[in-house]
Amino acid sequence: MNDKKLGGRTYALSQPPVILSGGNAVGKKEGQGPLAGTFDHIDHDDTFGQDSWEKAESAMQRLALNNALGKAGLKAGELDLLFAGDLLNQCIGSSFAARDLGVPFLGLYGACSTMGEGLLLAAMALDGGFGRWAAAAASSHFCTAERQYRTPLEYGGQRAPTAQWTVTGAGAVVLAREGRGPRITHVTPGRIVDLKIRDTNNMGAAMAPAAYDTISAHLKDTGRAPADYDLIVTGDLGFLGHELLLELLRRDGSDLSSNSTDCGMLIFRREEQDVHCGGSGCGCCASVLTGHLLDGLARGTWSRILFCPTGALHSPTSAMQGESIPGICHAVAIETDRPDGR
Amino acid sequence: MNDKKLGGRTYALSQPPVILSGGNAVGKKEGQGPLAGTFDHIDHDDTFGQDSWEKAESAMQRLALNNALGKAGLKAGELDLLFAGDLLNQCIGSSFAARDLGVPFLGLYGACSTMGEGLLLAAMALDGGFGRWAAAAASSHFCTAERQYRTPLEYGGQRAPTAQWTVTGAGAVVLAREGRGPRITHVTPGRIVDLKIRDTNNMGAAMAPAAYDTISAHLKDTGRAPADYDLIVTGDLGFLGHELLLELLRRDGSDLSSNSTDCGMLIFRREEQDVHCGGSGCGCCASVLTGHLLDGLARGTWSRILFCPTGALHSPTSAMQGESIPGICHAVAIETDRPDGR
Repeated sequence: MNDKKLGGRTYALSQPPVILSGGNAVGKKEGQGPLAGTFDHIDHDDTFGQDSWEKAESAMQRLALNNALGKAGLKAGELDLLFAGDLLNQCIGSSFAARDLGVPFLGLYGACSTMGEGLLLAAMALDGGFGRWAAAAASSHFCTAERQYRTPLEYGGQRAPTAQWTVTGAGAVVLAREGRGPRITHVTPGRIVDLKIRDTNNMGAAMAPAAYDTISAHLKDTGRAPADYDLIVTGDLGFLGHELLLELLRRDGSDLSSNSTDCGMLIFRREEQDVHCGGSGCGCCASVLTGHLLDGLARGTWSRILFCPTGALHSPTSAMQGESIPGICHAVAIETDRPDGR
Repeated sequence: MNDKKLGGRTYALSQPPVILSGGNAVGKKEGQGPLAGTFDHIDHDDTFGQDSWEKAESAMQRLALNNALGKAGLKAGELDLLFAGDLLNQCIGSSFAARDLGVPFLGLYGACSTMGEGLLLAAMALDGGFGRWAAAAASSHFCTAERQYRTPLEYGGQRAPTAQWTVTGAGAVVLAREGRGPRITHVTPGRIVDLKIRDTNNMGAAMAPAAYDTISAHLKDTGRAPADYDLIVTGDLGFLGHELLLELLRRDGSDLSSNSTDCGMLIFRREEQDVHCGGSGCGCCASVLTGHLLDGLARGTWSRILFCPTGALHSPTSAMQGESIPGICHAVAIETDRPDGR
């Protein structure tokens, strides 16, 4: 078999897997934002009927996967592989969500890049001949993240202007080797990039160099120009991180100002919802992809997007030990043949 | 392309990737055990020259990868993909180990099954046409695990008889699409199995049902009998968990008593080293594979082994919230054509 590598670190899939469906579930605040109409389930109190925030996150991720499976007309047991991850210590959001499914499970940790990593690996598996149906899922929950990464919710900590708001949301995508829908045509796995940013209240700055590294590599490897994509959408750089990404690309003569955005900029109303630099968390780009982006591909708003989730691969322990924040970004090209996305 | 699935959830690789090399690094206690002669580096004080245990774990994992790369005659920059994981919150052991390598990085969380998950995904990627060289790495460190999962080291907590000792060790394997060496011929990704064990001091019991589930599936899917393998080796069930696995298989009429073992039973001298039920941690099976097992394959002691790392997908938070311990086990068949393993 020929290597599918185009050069650099981008691969062209030989029989691009199809995105059969996307499903999601989000919290109350996300349901009050501009993308409310694109979510399958908006919880009224963010508990998802559970008695702890961690159990709520698992219930939410399971709901997102069930929603995706329902739209694809599949049962969980028909999935050949499930790739999933989240931000919780030991990724319990995902493992408890998948505990009763009886599906081959590959746990991921890519921080907020997880949806990109999962899509990339699921697409590679199907294109490599490993199964017919695979799913990728990711989640984050404001209340689990705050108490794990920052302070107890009751503490009411003051937020820095550069901080982002962790999205309470989960998204799941069902991929198939055959079928109709947008296809994953290229994948560019990310390298770890660390420009020594140490401010854990400024993740956008820590992750922007990784996004720049992967997007640049993808464009170079594929020989594509930024304008070849209708939309280049990063994961959760937020307003500041996205501005830094544009600046880094501008230095190379690439102008993405007219056809790029960031999921963290889309999911909330910045001023009215008091989110400072925007949304973040694995669930941010997972819920925006499975709502707003897949809807736009189906509607013909875009026919070719580059989905680039970003992650910060640090921990409270590494930060307390004075370490900087390593970033990563995985890119996945999603394309439709026809404007209606079928 | 034809699906490589044999049925059930086992895949036969079409051009089985080659294990070019394995490298490892371990701590002082491991270097005093029966497998001492199979380790590339034994640290004299478990710090690996670093000023925190977490940094020590990252340094150890990087050392293991460098040792594997050196034996394969490759530079890190030649790797197309690196799959890595560990037990630390947010998997910082791996991300900080890979921070400066400039290699496409896929972070995994599979608890102590991580080496199996990484080998499985790396083999699938190469067999699918994604790159020429891929590596899988995993680590654990007694001192990072104790203070994260249990109590501060200084507390000197009493250990239960069913407890295992977290191995200070890391292992890395370099795989290639072409070359000489043992080959990964089949992979069986694991499902999550939870028989409601709640005792976090008895991980063997929590993980044994997952090992039973995956080994049974592998044998059924491939049509192989236990005796078709020279060795069926689980990850870190320890003495009690391995006994439970044998019992579960015996009920189905499968007798693995003569050709199975567990990495957690091999790495320490049970009585003299005061490890109760044996070794555990991602680094346990990673260092045993890259030392004892690959050595035995090269020497012709075995020509066909089934490597079955097991993981417990819980966290201190899930345990404190009264949850049971979900287990998982991934199986990877490794075979040599000739007794000398070339």
